[in-house]
Amino acid sequence: MKKLLKPVDGGERYELRCPKAMPQASTFLWNRNMLLQLNCRGFAVAQHMQPEPSKYSHAPLLEHKTFMQPEQPQYAHHPGRFAYIRDRETGSVFSAPHEPVRAEPDDFVFSAGRSDAQWRLRKNDIGIRMSVALPLDDVAELWTIEVHNDSGKPRRLDLFPCFSIGYMSWMNQSAAYSSELGGIVARSITPYQKLEDYPHIKTLKDWTVLLHGERPSAWEACRDVFEGEGGIQHPDGVENGGLHNGDAIYETPIAALQYRLNLAPGECREYRFVFAPVRNGEQAKVLRTTYLASGGFEAAQAEVKAFQEQRQGCISISTPDAELDNFVNHWLNRQVFYHGDTNRLTTDPQTRNYLQDAMGMAYIEPGHSRAAILQTLAQQKADGALPEGVVLSNGSELKYINQVPHTDHCVWLPITLQTYLDETGDYALLDEWVESHGESLSVLERVTRAMRWLINNSDHRGLSLIAQGDWCDPLNMVGHQGKGVSGWLTIATVHALTIWADITKAVRLENLSVEMRTAAEKFTAAAQQHLWDGDWFARGISDAGTALGVSSDEEGKIWLNPQSWALMSGVATPQQQEKIKAAVREHLETPFGPMVLAPSYTSMREHIGRVTQKHPGTGENGAVYNHAGMFCIYALYAIADSDRAFTELRRIIPGPGDEHCLQRGQLPVFIPNYYRGAVKQFPRTAGRSSQLFNTGACSWLYRIIVEQLFGLRGIVDDGGAGGTAGGLQVAPQLPAHWQRADVTRHFRGATFDIQMQRDDSVDKTTLTVGDKVVTDGIIRDIEAGKCYSVKVLLPGALSSESGAHSSGSGAFSSESRALSPESKAFSAEVGTPDVAPGDSK
Amino acid sequence: MKKLLKPVDGGERYELRCPKAMPQASTFLWNRNMLLQLNCRGFAVAQHMQPEPSKYSHAPLLEHKTFMQPEQPQYAHHPGRFAYIRDRETGSVFSAPHEPVRAEPDDFVFSAGRSDAQWRLRKNDIGIRMSVALPLDDVAELWTIEVHNDSGKPRRLDLFPCFSIGYMSWMNQSAAYSSELGGIVARSITPYQKLEDYPHIKTLKDWTVLLHGERPSAWEACRDVFEGEGGIQHPDGVENGGLHNGDAIYETPIAALQYRLNLAPGECREYRFVFAPVRNGEQAKVLRTTYLASGGFEAAQAEVKAFQEQRQGCISISTPDAELDNFVNHWLNRQVFYHGDTNRLTTDPQTRNYLQDAMGMAYIEPGHSRAAILQTLAQQKADGALPEGVVLSNGSELKYINQVPHTDHCVWLPITLQTYLDETGDYALLDEWVESHGESLSVLERVTRAMRWLINNSDHRGLSLIAQGDWCDPLNMVGHQGKGVSGWLTIATVHALTIWADITKAVRLENLSVEMRTAAEKFTAAAQQHLWDGDWFARGISDAGTALGVSSDEEGKIWLNPQSWALMSGVATPQQQEKIKAAVREHLETPFGPMVLAPSYTSMREHIGRVTQKHPGTGENGAVYNHAGMFCIYALYAIADSDRAFTELRRIIPGPGDEHCLQRGQLPVFIPNYYRGAVKQFPRTAGRSSQLFNTGACSWLYRIIVEQLFGLRGIVDDGGAGGTAGGLQVAPQLPAHWQRADVTRHFRGATFDIQMQRDDSVDKTTLTVGDKVVTDGIIRDIEAGKCYSVKVLLPGALSSESGAHSSGSGAFSSESRALSPESKAFSAEVGTPDVAPGDSK
Repeated sequence: MKKLLKPVDGGERYELRCPKAMPQASTFLWNRNMLLQLNCRGFAVAQHMQPEPSKYSHAPLLEHKTFMQPEQPQYAHHPGRFAYIRDRETGSVFSAPHEPVRAEPDDFVFSAGRSDAQWRLRKNDIGIRMSVALPLDDVAELWTIEVHNDSGKPRRLDLFPCFSIGYMSWMNQSAAYSSELGGIVARSITPYQKLEDYPHIKTLKDWTVLLHGERPSAWEACRDVFEGEGGIQHPDGVENGGLHNGDAIYETPIAALQYRLNLAPGECREYRFVFAPVRNGEQAKVLRTTYLASGGFEAAQAEVKAFQEQRQGCISISTPDAELDNFVNHWLNRQVFYHGDTNRLTTDPQTRNYLQDAMGMAYIEPGHSRAAILQTLAQQKADGALPEGVVLSNGSELKYINQVPHTDHCVWLPITLQTYLDETGDYALLDEWVESHGESLSVLERVTRAMRWLINNSDHRGLSLIAQGDWCDPLNMVGHQGKGVSGWLTIATVHALTIWADITKAVRLENLSVEMRTAAEKFTAAAQQHLWDGDWFARGISDAGTALGVSSDEEGKIWLNPQSWALMSGVATPQQQEKIKAAVREHLETPFGPMVLAPSYTSMREHIGRVTQKHPGTGENGAVYNHAGMFCIYALYAIADSDRAFTELRRIIPGPGDEHCLQRGQLPVFIPNYYRGAVKQFPRTAGRSSQLFNTGACSWLYRIIVEQLFGLRGIVDDGGAGGTAGGLQVAPQLPAHWQRADVTRHFRGATFDIQMQRDDSVDKTTLTVGDKVVTDGIIRDIEAGKCYSVKVLLPGALSSESGAHSSGSGAFSSESRALSPESKAFSAEVGTPDVAPGDSK
Repeated sequence: MKKLLKPVDGGERYELRCPKAMPQASTFLWNRNMLLQLNCRGFAVAQHMQPEPSKYSHAPLLEHKTFMQPEQPQYAHHPGRFAYIRDRETGSVFSAPHEPVRAEPDDFVFSAGRSDAQWRLRKNDIGIRMSVALPLDDVAELWTIEVHNDSGKPRRLDLFPCFSIGYMSWMNQSAAYSSELGGIVARSITPYQKLEDYPHIKTLKDWTVLLHGERPSAWEACRDVFEGEGGIQHPDGVENGGLHNGDAIYETPIAALQYRLNLAPGECREYRFVFAPVRNGEQAKVLRTTYLASGGFEAAQAEVKAFQEQRQGCISISTPDAELDNFVNHWLNRQVFYHGDTNRLTTDPQTRNYLQDAMGMAYIEPGHSRAAILQTLAQQKADGALPEGVVLSNGSELKYINQVPHTDHCVWLPITLQTYLDETGDYALLDEWVESHGESLSVLERVTRAMRWLINNSDHRGLSLIAQGDWCDPLNMVGHQGKGVSGWLTIATVHALTIWADITKAVRLENLSVEMRTAAEKFTAAAQQHLWDGDWFARGISDAGTALGVSSDEEGKIWLNPQSWALMSGVATPQQQEKIKAAVREHLETPFGPMVLAPSYTSMREHIGRVTQKHPGTGENGAVYNHAGMFCIYALYAIADSDRAFTELRRIIPGPGDEHCLQRGQLPVFIPNYYRGAVKQFPRTAGRSSQLFNTGACSWLYRIIVEQLFGLRGIVDDGGAGGTAGGLQVAPQLPAHWQRADVTRHFRGATFDIQMQRDDSVDKTTLTVGDKVVTDGIIRDIEAGKCYSVKVLLPGALSSESGAHSSGSGAFSSESRALSPESKAFSAEVGTPDVAPGDSK
């Protein structure tokens, strides 16, 4: 039996060989102006920005405009891109990719590429290849359909490319063939009722066109006429062998074309199409000229390739885990870049997301991160709070969840800033002036103000107020009366303040640093006093004083985030660390990664809120919520539990192995925002992917891989003057079963070819750069443009428990990691209490 | 060949014998809490009020919440109520009613009843009967499915009732079989994000249940499992012969049951189901107890029948046009009652609609009309303006079009009031006190204030300002800068003021009456000076001074409404009347009724607005917009052009004859809001029904039939004291080709059995009540509870042109019709200028 799933082209493509095994399996393509999600069966969700997300291939009814939903269900008339093939001699019909006919193919491949998607299928000795790519900037799908006669005899076929246009508008929709533009042109007017909407409405690209390279012999633009009684699965227009050049007159449009083919044995025909929204015929003509002229597709793809090659990220790896290599080298960097490049195709990204997406971009396009930090601070409120969302374009407004007050946004600011500073050494950023609400302050002043906002956002006990949510958006009724507190946020505040204490210390602002550290210690003390439940930290305390996420709860007994952050922030004592790890293992661990809470709530708790109303095992109500999973992995590495960290990390990436992917229903070409949890309550659906590729998880995973797994983190010299760049710290935490790993790391303009190897002859990590041994593990005096050859010898494999002290970052002294708060937790554990804020607990 | 369409059961049902000829053909059932629209193929749209319209059988994706859209397209996964039948011996499968399998039936009947819908079909000697009715108040569908073995041999069958539940929520959805409740129970939580929505959300009926009478042998609650690769048309669960009792776990639910039948020749089995939204299991249990106990359906239907019998309307007719009789006696009254009874299932009906729906209710349940007038006035603004919509329930708000400022709402107040007063003689209403915005005024004062608002809503020329719309909602850019005027509204204001002048005169408020009449004359003069275009009246003049609806326009050259209202209001001089009639005939007449404007606009005109953006031939952009069509018919009767009026009237009701219905795609069980116009531009789609049964057209048609065609109108005595009831005027305007008509008219508690007959021996209309001849055409001194036998002899058939003077209301003197403004226009024509406001023009 053929392998169901496999990477090809050195991992640059990923192939699925059955349309039925994972019907929701999907990939996505994007440019800055559009997004195209495609599933293996030919269904598609396309959005373009004008500037709000809009559709040009619609559902069959007026769709609710909202954010992307998890596990979005498909249905017979789901928008898609199809090609029906009819044998004119036998009348037999099948379709590519698989929908709508769903004929059993003789051969099927769905091939997700980094910048295209392809399908190859064979049925009755006819081969079909469909592929799509996007241009660098234009909103347009560039489609190729090839038909190949694989039989030994001439074949007479009809090819019917058929692209969904759907229900465009109740005000005005129509479609017809245009000889002048060369294709089906569907026109509509976005429905509206208010006069004040008109100026915007009239700027929209309300037409959808399917432009062809080669003129078809017939076409149909009216969906119902095309389908007739046969329906979408067996359209009359196809089954009866001919289209009749009809129009859609205030009827649901479709773009169906017919080509008559007489193929000699072995003969192949290729057809090209551009499917796109436009505002008028002129724009359609430009698309035709640009892409349907000879070499147009090739030029577009070359441009995209050149663009992508500049944005591959800062690391490429070769390890004993080839599937991990593929994912990190080709897909994870791509997903991280997608987030930063497009801001998830929103005009008002949630501040928390925007900052973390910028964190990931520090490794790919640091200039973007810098700009995002400045953009965020330019919308800081006078009291230091950050807004719910960062408004990116004129006229856009805060929507959906960004209308609900959350209290965690400031936490992410020092985290992203630290990552950016580590990666670039660009301490000049701290002195940039940023104007907001008529006040001009430096970045340093603004971040300080944000930290003071966090400090002030606390109650009489010193616990952080939650308002209507923190990281967990639907945790909206714990503190809506103004009294309830967040256990996680209290602990996360420690983490944020500690980072800021470190950074300010590095730039010699001793007083400020001490202020931050002292505040962190107070929050730590409050957390210890009010939140420690005996075996783990509570998730919060409601307005009425009821604790949640505690052992006396029957549901939502333990939440992952307070535990992860207690580990990474140093809030947890060594004894607590052990208890926490045991509790997480017992209550939250699954084969798909850790659940965000357990047991999932099964009914509303009015002192907790909306999270308890989500379906058990989905989203924040007990899914393997990968963003939270990443915090957990980050925390495990931070306390040098490298093997356990790697185990969790590996679980979160689909595969290796078909079965692992099958239960998820997802290809390893992105990290989804969640896998279904509630594994005991609902084993049938446990592990199923949300198919949502918008997630803060990818930035964190990239960071974890660069800075923790391979331990290749930028660092500022402890003793340097403010702004001193420091160097590249080398402190890998490879899993014990890896004997070697080769890593190429791009850092501050230089390239490091790094060989990591276990060697029984060393008893601690040994670093050689060129022919020089580096004793403190930090490569300094890096010259941009230069290539360094680096060798790292690691002690032989040890178990995680006994090896924690000798593997990983612990091999070097804590002084060299002044900006690394997690190292302090670890340092505390190994007995250097002088710098640890949480050591006395 | 069988007749495609026919009425049965004395017209109480209407049958369609093919599922393919008119695939959108539909009927609707309702009670005060819900609405169920069903098409002939089994698709359904159900809404219930909590208090805003909600769904319990959803689309397969998150649907946009909006008003009901015209020509709503259907699609494979459109919600529906289906039953698959599988022959266990042959494996052959078909479904009732027709979707989703779409097998060619051997016999098919879709039968729309006044209080139920039925399907009967036969395939492979198996008969299926499906029927549904609604209870009087509960939100629940009561379904019966019968399977009949029509073959001469035993049959082994599987029956799979299958009801769509659809995509309920991205927050939480699931479904499972409940033994306790006896059926499939699908649970969900309406998605929300804001805390302030929670108190409302938690009151919603978020579960959907399919409760069964008889326990099935198996079931499936997960749509994708039920369908498998076969899809909705050939579900694996059916094709493979068995369901596996599966649940939906955050998956799209379906309610599919399986019954194993072994039917002897001739044997029949009946199954009953209740399909409904509920808030919890308790509510489901109540539904089960109420309806699935023995005799439950029968009791519910008896209750509905009793309720309906009290609300049959004020007229029943027997004419040479049997199809018209059916429509008027069984369907039109039903549609009128639906509007008033449910307020179109909105919580904020547009004031214009609310008042006109109340106008229709004056003939069915006058107490409702009275309450609606009072409710409207209780929301009158201090300056006399009426609000955009009338808010009917606490917490509901003005939505959609009711957020746009229109200037016509006051026009409809005297029209509805006049109808109510004519029908009831309840002049005491004028003295009722109504509090609004802290001010207590009588109805009379409030209506006067509304009329003065209309008077003041005019520019320096004396033309009525349009703001962002009048009757024509999307005429939103003529006057948005505050200067543009409405030609129609100017003329309609004359009509409204004249009615109020008549009513105030009747109650002896001479000064007020003169004030109104004087104002009406000023508007008339202004209309004549600024709006008469040579052959017709202009539609308006824009902010910038550009006229529209004039002969120099290439599109939108002539609009129907200004012409109709110029005829009915007396604004048009006799010479103008002739020109108008000729112009309407030339430019607007179609086989389906008159178009609302022509030629339809094909592109945006920024001095006109959104109407020009609607698809040509749809809605206000040149459809046969039946509400406007009714004004035209009303006006033609008002000027006694009875034959032409009847011709137009008859065109607007689908049929008689299959072809007439086929082009419309609609059964004659309701008047839709439009038929497609733009007959020259788009002949293929001309005449197609919108399938929207919400329309002001039905109230007007009812009024026209009662008061104009049969001329049976309530009237106040001209010489009576204020509040004198007058009597029933008898002034039929039968079409020339009718020799007779029998009418039963209920009026102020009495019943009138009226025989109308053409008789060559009379040269004017002659009225006999019992054995007394009534010379002035008015039956007075009516005693409630009494039954009057009335005979009307009419002069022989004459052509419309020559017969206008002797047929119809013109037969009686104008003095007896002091409250009838339209009679004045007619009187003017026949030369009694003393009472005519428009006579000097």
